[in-house]
Amino acid sequence: MRYFPAALERLTEQFAKLPGIGGKTAQRLAFHLLSMPEEDAREFADAIIDAKKSVHLCPCCQNLTDRELCPICDDESRDHGLICVVADPKDVIAMERAREFTGVYHVLHGVISPLNHIGPDDICIRELLARVGKGGVREVIMATNPDTEGEATAMYISRLLRPMEVRVTRLAYGIPVGSQLEYADEVTLLRALEGRRDI
Amino acid sequence: MRYFPAALERLTEQFAKLPGIGGKTAQRLAFHLLSMPEEDAREFADAIIDAKKSVHLCPCCQNLTDRELCPICDDESRDHGLICVVADPKDVIAMERAREFTGVYHVLHGVISPLNHIGPDDICIRELLARVGKGGVREVIMATNPDTEGEATAMYISRLLRPMEVRVTRLAYGIPVGSQLEYADEVTLLRALEGRRDI
Repeated sequence: MRYFPAALERLTEQFAKLPGIGGKTAQRLAFHLLSMPEEDAREFADAIIDAKKSVHLCPCCQNLTDRELCPICDDESRDHGLICVVADPKDVIAMERAREFTGVYHVLHGVISPLNHIGPDDICIRELLARVGKGGVREVIMATNPDTEGEATAMYISRLLRPMEVRVTRLAYGIPVGSQLEYADEVTLLRALEGRRDI
Repeated sequence: MRYFPAALERLTEQFAKLPGIGGKTAQRLAFHLLSMPEEDAREFADAIIDAKKSVHLCPCCQNLTDRELCPICDDESRDHGLICVVADPKDVIAMERAREFTGVYHVLHGVISPLNHIGPDDICIRELLARVGKGGVREVIMATNPDTEGEATAMYISRLLRPMEVRVTRLAYGIPVGSQLEYADEVTLLRALEGRRDI
């Protein structure tokens, strides 16, 4: 027997489809939406439609944008000969927060992950190759996550870029600033040792 | 500098307004919605509008429904002389799961809580009194949560009902004190029903 109105059940199901939202939470969220003023609920619905309609990928760097070109690709003051390759739009923000990088980005939208059936053609590698192929690019910095899949993706892409006469680099490994040596894992310490520099 | 399209920021803000959803989770959910097919996103938005539009309170028991009368109030086979008073629509489901209660419900939509500025007039007590006043009600079972506010609300209502020549009972303390009805298991609820006492 159905205890709740069908429309409420449907809304609960929609919430339950979202990542990290279980049945109980979905129900709580659906109830909360019902208790909101009609205007606020409509605003929520409009925000979904609007985001879906107006946000698309930047044709140059594949980052999310609502303009023709994203603000970073459109910025003449940035170094368009230096491309930082990241897996996710959120990584662009992390890099920008460092306020040091003056080049442009390329967002892959994922990493190669055979276990999850994600191959090289499922992420935006083709677009990166086309971009570098057009010329004018001096250096490509691979800034995928320092885990197995991020590493493998960086290696794969660097191999494809090598014949294109472009410098391919990787973010340095080492101990994070502000952390404690005591808690650093062996691999990170090893990499930090390997990458040591004169002071 | 804005890194994300405005529409995406707005969607993130909407998610962040929901209870228990922090900034990071809101961002993850907004990104997920963007990655969904347009049709699915529209379905989500429609579910919100639809739930808000079609769901209202049953004029008899105040439970949520999309019909004129809710399915339980509309069910001739149920005992309309036996009313179970709960604080929340979710509690109706918890009671129904016990498959033992054959009466009808009354949903208060909250409990008296002076600390949160919720007085007797802010919850559906008036509707309950009018319902019992019409006659034909044999017994009212108070099934508010077994916590301070639930207890106080039950006591308050039972005092109002006493002059109306109706038996007023309270769920037995088979339910663990301090817990929430919504999460009670069927057996505990069954015991609580069987052991109900006059107040």
